[in-house]
Amino acid sequence: MSQSPVLQPPTYDDVRAAADRIAPHAHRTPVLRSRLVNEALGADVVFKCENFQRMGAFKFRGAFNALAQFTPEQRRAGVVAYSSGNHAQAVSLSARLLGIPATIVMPHDAPASKVAATKGYGGQVVTYDRYTEDREEIGRALAAEHGLTLIPPYDHPHVIAGQGTVAKELFEEVGELDDLFVPLGGGGLLSGSSLSARVLSPGCRLYGVEPEAGDDGRQSLRQGSVVHIDTPKTIADGAQTQHLGAWTFEIVRREVTDIHTVSDAQLVDAMRDFATFMKIVVEPTGCLGFAAVRRLADRLRGRRIGVIISGGNIDLDRYASLLAP
Amino acid sequence: MSQSPVLQPPTYDDVRAAADRIAPHAHRTPVLRSRLVNEALGADVVFKCENFQRMGAFKFRGAFNALAQFTPEQRRAGVVAYSSGNHAQAVSLSARLLGIPATIVMPHDAPASKVAATKGYGGQVVTYDRYTEDREEIGRALAAEHGLTLIPPYDHPHVIAGQGTVAKELFEEVGELDDLFVPLGGGGLLSGSSLSARVLSPGCRLYGVEPEAGDDGRQSLRQGSVVHIDTPKTIADGAQTQHLGAWTFEIVRREVTDIHTVSDAQLVDAMRDFATFMKIVVEPTGCLGFAAVRRLADRLRGRRIGVIISGGNIDLDRYASLLAP
Repeated sequence: MSQSPVLQPPTYDDVRAAADRIAPHAHRTPVLRSRLVNEALGADVVFKCENFQRMGAFKFRGAFNALAQFTPEQRRAGVVAYSSGNHAQAVSLSARLLGIPATIVMPHDAPASKVAATKGYGGQVVTYDRYTEDREEIGRALAAEHGLTLIPPYDHPHVIAGQGTVAKELFEEVGELDDLFVPLGGGGLLSGSSLSARVLSPGCRLYGVEPEAGDDGRQSLRQGSVVHIDTPKTIADGAQTQHLGAWTFEIVRREVTDIHTVSDAQLVDAMRDFATFMKIVVEPTGCLGFAAVRRLADRLRGRRIGVIISGGNIDLDRYASLLAP
Repeated sequence: MSQSPVLQPPTYDDVRAAADRIAPHAHRTPVLRSRLVNEALGADVVFKCENFQRMGAFKFRGAFNALAQFTPEQRRAGVVAYSSGNHAQAVSLSARLLGIPATIVMPHDAPASKVAATKGYGGQVVTYDRYTEDREEIGRALAAEHGLTLIPPYDHPHVIAGQGTVAKELFEEVGELDDLFVPLGGGGLLSGSSLSARVLSPGCRLYGVEPEAGDDGRQSLRQGSVVHIDTPKTIADGAQTQHLGAWTFEIVRREVTDIHTVSDAQLVDAMRDFATFMKIVVEPTGCLGFAAVRRLADRLRGRRIGVIISGGNIDLDRYASLLAP
C-alpha cells in the first residue's frame, strides 16, 4: 500500500486550502430561504443546499480534497472507498476528474440510483451485505492486495477539511448565525462544519442531528468515547453508520453543543415541506437538520438558524412512495 | 367600474419599468444548469426557475405590476381575478402587499394547494365549474356589480410587461441564446418573453410549448387569428386555456418562431428528470418547455438553449402519483 504523509488534525486553514482546491470543480451551492417556513417557525432559517452540489451531495467536496492530495504513485495505483452511496459517487467522480482508477465497496441494498451513478462515473463497484459483512475490512483487504489508497467516507483529515467548505460558504454568504443544524452520520460534515463555525461565527451553537434508530453519536457524546452500534434501520441511508470516527469524534466532542435525534416519520414530514414550500427534492438524510428544527421550533423562536441540506439523491419510486399521503 | 387609463401595447420599456416596480417584492430567481442533462442532450441548456418565485410561479410578476399601477380609487374598491390557480395566488398576494381587497374566481376542481394558498394570502374565493360556466363572464359581472377592477390572467399589457421580466433576468444573466422555450397557456409569459428577447437576444428563436390536448395557440398561429377550443383535459392545469388573448396574440404572431406541443406522458418524463437530475419540484405546466427540448433533442445538438420553468405549485399527493413508476 502506498505511504501517505503523516496526517495532522484538520484546522480552519485546511478548510481554506480545500476551498481553493475544489473551487474549479465543485458548485458554490445556493442558500435558500422560505417566507412560509419562517412564518410557520417564527424564526429566520437559511438552508445551505448541497442537494444542488455535483453528484447531488456534499460528499464531493471531501472526496475531491482527499484525492487531489495523492502522490503521483498513489494516483497511478488507484483509490478504494466504501460507502452507503454518496461517498461512492463522490470518489468515483473525483477519481475520474483526476484520472485515478477507483474501486468502490457498496452495500448490496444501496439505492439503485446511487449504484448506477457510481458506475456511470467510471468507478468499479464491489458489493457486500451491510448486515453481516464488515465494509472496512473489505476495503482494507482490497487496499492491501492491490496497493490502493483507502479513502474512508468520513474519518480522514482531508475529507473533514473538504466537508468544512460547506459551512464556510454558508457563513460567508449569510454572516453569523445563532444555531447551525447538521446531519450526522460518521461526523465528517459535522466536524468540518465546526472548524468553519468556530472561526466565522464563534458564538454559533452547533447541533448534530441523527436518526433515532442510530443515536450512536449522542451516546458517544454523553459517554465521552466512541460508541459502536448495529447498523441502524432508518430511511436515512446516509446516516446508517455504526460509529463516529477517531478523527471526527475528537472534534465533535470538543466543538458540538448537542446532538438531537429525529424519527423516520419526522424526516418524511420535513421532506414533504421541502417539496411543498421550497420546491426542492431532498433525500431522507438531507432532511435531518430541518426535521430537528421543526421538532424544536418552540425553543428556537426569533433565532437565526442555519440548516445544512446534505444531499438529494434518492430513487424516484422511493421518493414518490415517501411523499404519498 | 373604475376607469383605467387607455392601455397601449406593451414594449420593452414597459418590461424595464415593471422590473423596477417588482424588484422590492419579487425574487430574482436562480438559473440552473445540469451537466447530466447537457450530456444527455448534447446541448447547453439553462433553466430559469420560476418555481422558486414568490408564491411558486412567475404569475406574481405580472399581477404585482398590474396592481401597482391602480389609481387610489381602484385600490379602495378592490380587484377581481379569474384563474386556474397561480394567477389567483399572484393577485391575492400582490393585493395583500399593496393593501387592496381581492376577490378570486377559481374553478371548482382547482388544485387544493392553490385554493388554500389563495385564501391564505387573504383573497376571497368564488368557485365555478370550468366545463360548463364562463369564468370571464363571472369576473365581469362581479366587477360591474361591486366596482372592482378586473385583472385578467394574461391578456393585459401590464400583466404581459410584468411576465417579460423573467426572460429579461435570464438574458441579463446568461447572455444571448440560440433558442428559448416557454410554456404557453394564454400567452402572457410567451409574449412578455418576446419583448425582452427581441432587445436582449435579437437572433434567438422563440418557441411556445402547449399541451397536445390544447393546441389552440398552434392553430391560431397557423390560421392567423385567435382560435377558441373547449377546455382541454391535460395535467398541465396552468395551460388549460381556451384561447390566446387579443393583446398576447398580436405579439405572439409577430415574434414567435413556432409553437410545439407535448403529451401528458412527455410532461411526466420531464418532471421525473427535474426531480432526478436537478432536485427540483416542477408542476406539469412548468415542464412544458423542457418536455419540448427533450422531444426535439436531435434537432438541438450543439445549441445554447433557454428553458423557462413557469412554476412549482402542485398538490403533493398528485405529484407523488405522477412520479411513481
